[in-house]
Amino acid sequence: MTLSIDLNCDMGESFGAWKMGLDNEILPYVTSANIACGYHAGDPAVMRQTVAAAIKHGVALGAHPGLPDLVGFGRRTMDISPENAYDMVVVQIGALAAVAASQGGRLHHVKAHGALYNMAAKNRPLALAIAQAVYDVNASLVLYALAASELVQAGNDVGLTVAQEVFADRTYQQDGSLTSRKQPDAMIEDPQQSIQQVLRMVLDGRVVTQQSHEIPVQADTLCIHGDQPGAAMFAQAIRKALQEKGIVVRAMGG
Amino acid sequence: MTLSIDLNCDMGESFGAWKMGLDNEILPYVTSANIACGYHAGDPAVMRQTVAAAIKHGVALGAHPGLPDLVGFGRRTMDISPENAYDMVVVQIGALAAVAASQGGRLHHVKAHGALYNMAAKNRPLALAIAQAVYDVNASLVLYALAASELVQAGNDVGLTVAQEVFADRTYQQDGSLTSRKQPDAMIEDPQQSIQQVLRMVLDGRVVTQQSHEIPVQADTLCIHGDQPGAAMFAQAIRKALQEKGIVVRAMGG
Amino acid sequence: MTLSIDLNCDMGESFGAWKMGLDNEILPYVTSANIACGYHAGDPAVMRQTVAAAIKHGVALGAHPGLPDLVGFGRRTMDISPENAYDMVVVQIGALAAVAASQGGRLHHVKAHGALYNMAAKNRPLALAIAQAVYDVNASLVLYALAASELVQAGNDVGLTVAQEVFADRTYQQDGSLTSRKQPDAMIEDPQQSIQQVLRMVLDGRVVTQQSHEIPVQADTLCIHGDQPGAAMFAQAIRKALQEKGIVVRAMGG
Amino acid sequence: MTLSIDLNCDMGESFGAWKMGLDNEILPYVTSANIACGYHAGDPAVMRQTVAAAIKHGVALGAHPGLPDLVGFGRRTMDISPENAYDMVVVQIGALAAVAASQGGRLHHVKAHGALYNMAAKNRPLALAIAQAVYDVNASLVLYALAASELVQAGNDVGLTVAQEVFADRTYQQDGSLTSRKQPDAMIEDPQQSIQQVLRMVLDGRVVTQQSHEIPVQADTLCIHGDQPGAAMFAQAIRKALQEKGIVVRAMGG
Repeated sequence: MTLSIDLNCDMGESFGAWKMGLDNEILPYVTSANIACGYHAGDPAVMRQTVAAAIKHGVALGAHPGLPDLVGFGRRTMDISPENAYDMVVVQIGALAAVAASQGGRLHHVKAHGALYNMAAKNRPLALAIAQAVYDVNASLVLYALAASELVQAGNDVGLTVAQEVFADRTYQQDGSLTSRKQPDAMIEDPQQSIQQVLRMVLDGRVVTQQSHEIPVQADTLCIHGDQPGAAMFAQAIRKALQEKGIVVRAMGG
Repeated sequence: MTLSIDLNCDMGESFGAWKMGLDNEILPYVTSANIACGYHAGDPAVMRQTVAAAIKHGVALGAHPGLPDLVGFGRRTMDISPENAYDMVVVQIGALAAVAASQGGRLHHVKAHGALYNMAAKNRPLALAIAQAVYDVNASLVLYALAASELVQAGNDVGLTVAQEVFADRTYQQDGSLTSRKQPDAMIEDPQQSIQQVLRMVLDGRVVTQQSHEIPVQADTLCIHGDQPGAAMFAQAIRKALQEKGIVVRAMGG
Repeated sequence: MTLSIDLNCDMGESFGAWKMGLDNEILPYVTSANIACGYHAGDPAVMRQTVAAAIKHGVALGAHPGLPDLVGFGRRTMDISPENAYDMVVVQIGALAAVAASQGGRLHHVKAHGALYNMAAKNRPLALAIAQAVYDVNASLVLYALAASELVQAGNDVGLTVAQEVFADRTYQQDGSLTSRKQPDAMIEDPQQSIQQVLRMVLDGRVVTQQSHEIPVQADTLCIHGDQPGAAMFAQAIRKALQEKGIVVRAMGG
Repeated sequence: MTLSIDLNCDMGESFGAWKMGLDNEILPYVTSANIACGYHAGDPAVMRQTVAAAIKHGVALGAHPGLPDLVGFGRRTMDISPENAYDMVVVQIGALAAVAASQGGRLHHVKAHGALYNMAAKNRPLALAIAQAVYDVNASLVLYALAASELVQAGNDVGLTVAQEVFADRTYQQDGSLTSRKQPDAMIEDPQQSIQQVLRMVLDGRVVTQQSHEIPVQADTLCIHGDQPGAAMFAQAIRKALQEKGIVVRAMGG
């Protein structure tokens, strides 16, 4: 059996006259793109340009729905109802799917953004609403979700293919959750250590927690950050390290 | 050959806590609904509720894309480029199409709103951009356009099925355009006169202009206003008058 | 010593083409208006019209700042920082103050809206940020705050005049808080009972809680709802009842 | 008599997570800042930070109101009524004035942005509405307007102090208007030529048009662009050149 992993990156987060991210530098190294849909970032022109660039690089197209909070970049938790979540995910998927179709592509997956992603990881009714929204629009879409989170469970429950997402530069707790960024040891700063964590996750299905125990983890897709200096270089390095171990880098179902 | 006409009405123009229109009163009498997509009106919840109601009444689902001007209700002309128009129509169609899919329905047509509709009637590059957007998202969608306008021509040019739209309560000029609302004789106030104008359009394919000449007109779909007192009553009356003449009331291709 | 109370009402909550509230019906009976500033409701034209109407009726002008959530009408709790709160309150006060100045009036008070009001009642850092924002823009403005809440304390701490707000149609708990609307006994449905509660508050400075004890309450301003059928009639009745007891109905400092 | 000129620059055009402009690099060289008010750019936090930075550098504070078109950066002409213009200018001035007050400063001037600036230069009713809005909020504010435009006239008519604005890098037509950017010779690319044009304007009150004639021009304030590479260096150079000629660089009335 061939081991494989997807490398995903958030993209299309410019807006109007404002630029963000290094999409074109990252695109050669990743296998799936999570493209903002206009709620936390992105506008119709940016969506089209990002979709076109991703298609050109053979990168799988994903919708990246967020909260309706442009000034807060979708990072501020909002007390939305599951019904609110369902509705806002449906329209954002639809917008991106239409852009994909207009450019000759096809939507492949959905990954929630920012506070919506974090809320869906812990809040079961919200997770179910989001998973149901994806399913109801197009049951063949892959749902990206934080590994071992409520959203993974919700995606399985409604019948979606789920890609469990892992992080190279974040440390893990005993229960499989990420160490909060408010903790001093939340981030892995050393690129080599990041790469080792990823290789261990893919090859052995295990990660060493901050409590120094090993726990199982399913690493279907790895989150690559695209907005930091050196992002493309790290993406290139991790891709190379994976391939040297015989791990195929590709989007799920791709 | 059976004569037929579609009765369309703008719907789903509530927003958040604000209500507008008498959608549920009108739905029994029309055959297609143009549903706002969040730019000039509508929000994800309103879109879902309106789509669900239209499906329940067997009314054809249409996207009603507008300018990004919520406070101006999409009625203020904006100097957008054809590329802007293409992009904003694509995402709005997509949003509504996803809502339709999530509710077990399917998008049938697209009708531009307000200033976008009026600009597209006269501005050929804009008309072509809008028609191309519709075609690129889904070539089987029907494009609703002001009868004898640039948008009709553009829709035909790109290969779409076009439904030419006529009005019961507006007077016509020699060139087939509507009399400007700035003119005193723009509106037909008498319901019976409105009904006679529509019957003449459908039965004979002709309309009497303000200059007292007859000109040809193609009446594929009739615009029913839904936000005025007596709207439902007029819709019912016109439907009855059409049926008494043996004219089938149905959406195109339906 | 003369007893007095202010009757305040939220106003100017229309937006663009959408109407809300019965401002003109209520204005004859209240003494201060909390006018939406464009974040949860209101637009520049609505703000001007509402300010002009309030001036005409001699009603004190208040800014009614809310969360930047138009589609949610500012009712959804958002995880904003105290700095976010400070900034958004400053700009909203400023917008309303300029409209007041342009119409020949002067801003009198500030009352937070919806989720911002509720969060400020319980969250001390947020309450302090809001109070400081009001003070920094204009130290002579009156801060309206839920009686006995954190915002009352914060307003006092920064040196503002504070008007403690009470409700005619809500029941109270032992600690002076309102009974949650999720509880069945949160609302007082009977208008006469509402009026008795208000008279007791003003005349004796006391309210009977749901636990059947009396607690002290400071009733500087009474919230009158303006968006319900019968709102104007209730405002008229409560005003009459207050005046019959010799209580002066006027805005603080007015 | 001492010759003087103001150097103004648009600032505070970041928004949320998106950065724009080199405000801190430019601030040491200019004498007045036009600060975005949240309609075309800017948000409450950016407004506060920009106001604080301008105060620190002793730079005069201006409101920079624009059209409600964030995605278009206020550059797309919109068919707004004079009443719309009045209202949107009032609220934007108010927002910035409150931020200024909260930071211990005071608003000094108003300069319209983008399409609003351009429309106001040519459209008399719009120009009058904008001038009246400024006057009605605070009659002591200075109105910045394109030299020789309708807005200069309108400002004078309503009784405002007007600062006529000139450009270093734009060429002029016989009627005193700027050469359209659609023309190949609209821009002066050579910095030395730009500086010479400015010196001529200030020292002699004249500019050489594209038709090689001299026309009179009143140069009260010079627009410095802040978003281009080399912007700070050009600002420094022009400031030095002005001062070497004995021209005082300062804001009007400052």
